This record gives sequence, C-alpha cells and structure tokens, in this order.
Amino acid sequence: MYKVKVYVSLRESILDPQGNAVKNALHSMSYREVQDVRIGKYMELMIEKTDRPLEETVKEMCEKLLANTVIEDYRFEAEEVVVQ
Amino acid sequence: MYKVKVYVSLRESILDPQGNAVKNALHSMSYREVQDVRIGKYMELMIEKTDRPLEETVKEMCEKLLANTVIEDYRFEAEEVVVQ
Repeated sequence: MYKVKVYVSLRESILDPQGNAVKNALHSMSYREVQDVRIGKYMELMIEKTDRPLEETVKEMCEKLLANTVIEDYRFEAEEVVVQ
Repeated sequence: MYKVKVYVSLRESILDPQGNAVKNALHSMSYREVQDVRIGKYMELMIEKTDRPLEETVKEMCEKLLANTVIEDYRFEAEEVVVQ
C-alpha cells in the first residue's frame, strides 16, 4: 500500500483572489509581515500496489481529475506504508 | 524573507465527503486501487523576518485563521528565501 501526498497549486501567473483575501485578513489581525499568500489543495491518497508503475498512475489521475492543468501545477510524493 | 508551507487537513475522526467523492470519481475512471482520499488545504506564505520567532507567529496564524482547529489539524515547514 502507498500513501501518496498530492499538492495542487495555482500557477504563478494566475491571480489568487482567495490567497489575497487571506493575506488581507492576516494584515487586519496585525500580521503585517505577511507579503503573499497562495492557496492550493493538499490530498492524501491510499493506493494499493498494482503491476503498473505508481508514478504513471498518479500522474494520470492528476492530469485527468485532481488538478486543472490549464491553471494549476501539481507535484506528489509517495511512501510505502505497512497496513496493520 | 521566509517561505512557509502550511498543510491543513481534516482530523482522521472527521468524515471527508469531498475526499469520498473524489475516490468514487477515481473508481469510475477505473482506478480501483485507490482505497482512500482525504482532501485538505495547502498554503504558501511569504513572510518577512521580524523580531518574533517565526514558529510562534505561524502557529498563531494557524490557530486564529488558517485552520479550524475544532475539526482540522495543521503542520508547517519554513525555509529562508533570498528575494532578488
């Protein structure tokens, strides 16, 4: 079994109104040192071993569903886990 | 300047309907090997150095705004960045 962590974030060139809203909220709470906030998705997937290379499968899932590759970038990390 | 990566995810005990919906979608796309999906938030903050310890400030921001500590857990990583 694998635990795969997927990080999806807006491309640098894309405006991030949600991030901006959080930055303004932090400023109003006197955290003036915050210069920028960008918000994305963080997903944890538990995936059973198959005969296909894990990387290939996860890449496909990201491209087809988990990320909107027109406006988002994605990266992922995988670790093998022993399930009791 | 620091780049701080914040990961906010639902507590294990909390049902994750969004994660469930993604899992079902992946199954319908024939990715049957996916056993579980949990979805959270991933935030990147650029924070200027101050005289306060960074960890203390970020912890406070998470507890007050970035995470709903009743149902969510958070963790963060910081790296110093040189801004051109």
